[in-house]
Amino acid sequence: MRLTTVGLDADDTLWHNETIFRLSLARFAQLLEPYCEARDLEARLARVERRNLRLYGYGVKGFTLSLIETAMEAAGEAEIGPVIRDILAAGREMLSHPVEPLPQVEHTVARLAGRYRLVLITKGDLMDQERKLAASGLGDHFAAVEIVSEKTVQTYERVFERHGTGASQAAMAGNSLRSDILPALAAGALAAHIPYPLTWTHEDAEPPIHDARFGQLASIAELPAWLERWEG
Amino acid sequence: MRLTTVGLDADDTLWHNETIFRLSLARFAQLLEPYCEARDLEARLARVERRNLRLYGYGVKGFTLSLIETAMEAAGEAEIGPVIRDILAAGREMLSHPVEPLPQVEHTVARLAGRYRLVLITKGDLMDQERKLAASGLGDHFAAVEIVSEKTVQTYERVFERHGTGASQAAMAGNSLRSDILPALAAGALAAHIPYPLTWTHEDAEPPIHDARFGQLASIAELPAWLERWEG
Repeated sequence: MRLTTVGLDADDTLWHNETIFRLSLARFAQLLEPYCEARDLEARLARVERRNLRLYGYGVKGFTLSLIETAMEAAGEAEIGPVIRDILAAGREMLSHPVEPLPQVEHTVARLAGRYRLVLITKGDLMDQERKLAASGLGDHFAAVEIVSEKTVQTYERVFERHGTGASQAAMAGNSLRSDILPALAAGALAAHIPYPLTWTHEDAEPPIHDARFGQLASIAELPAWLERWEG
Repeated sequence: MRLTTVGLDADDTLWHNETIFRLSLARFAQLLEPYCEARDLEARLARVERRNLRLYGYGVKGFTLSLIETAMEAAGEAEIGPVIRDILAAGREMLSHPVEPLPQVEHTVARLAGRYRLVLITKGDLMDQERKLAASGLGDHFAAVEIVSEKTVQTYERVFERHGTGASQAAMAGNSLRSDILPALAAGALAAHIPYPLTWTHEDAEPPIHDARFGQLASIAELPAWLERWEG
């Protein structure tokens, strides 16, 4: 087959994201320790986030608003002032956090860019993702950036049609089976799963191990060789 | 000249946006009336929004976070609980507000779509803008949607290159001189200003009345005839 285009997920594929959310969560649990146990708090927050997902989408700003809402529920309105000040500060810190590419990302992305049209395909806040791409130093390797509200079969069809030669000549790589792998396969692309140690619970799915176009990789460094197997 | 592509701004060009922000502001001023005068409050909020713009960008979620921060400053941390509950509710309402196209928009957009490739070019939260476009019933008329973090000369060059035949064969229409008109003209496109009665203060600029490619229109209904003048 002829392979022209490679889509790459951003958060937890090119740089840390979940780790930063976890650190904020840990800080949040500490703030609310007097009012609520850490485990209860996580369950409450998950409920609030699920309820708000349709309105807020993915990203730091929606996460911060859901944290505030959860804190209001947990601590009660009388004592909430200092907690909210700290949540707002934590949200701003997340939005200005330094961006360091994950191990082997720089070298691998540069190598892929010499051979394929690279497209960054990611959810989250537009401005935050643009900032992270610029701060990572990886921006020049990408022919296009697509920040999308959901990653569906139609998303991959549209993106690979627009920026390449269609999904049948494209591959997608990322850390989420549910968002990066299953819909990309269904659109007709190859798909390589590169797990991140912490994966967000909403993103869990079964690996499609019986699909020949699916690859399970241990690191992004294995991606170039895996893609080359399909060529010629 | 040959005109192939027309960019349209979304908020306050196709549907109300500023009005909804103003209503939320009025409600916010009422909530904080015991602590702060309405005029002082607007000045405080403008300061907080300016400080956060680099991190939050445009859109309802960043606005809600800035409201909360302003409320914390104005009311003090001891009495803030009920105020924040109401701000969160107001933010969620803004994100699920019904979308009604402005007068003459539906008819005009349908007419433009028969003749040009229409591209929606807008700032704000990705998910919120996608929702508004779907809810407005105008989605089918647009060949492409570009949700951008800033509207610069490079934005218009890139968008009209990607979705049309370059800025020299494109026109942009919108309600903001600073975002829709001046950078589109500098990119080489035609640009038509269609004012909205309330314009956000950050968006003010001088109309470029000496530029022959600039048009000052009273309503979007005048746009088709203005564009046709340039053809042939």
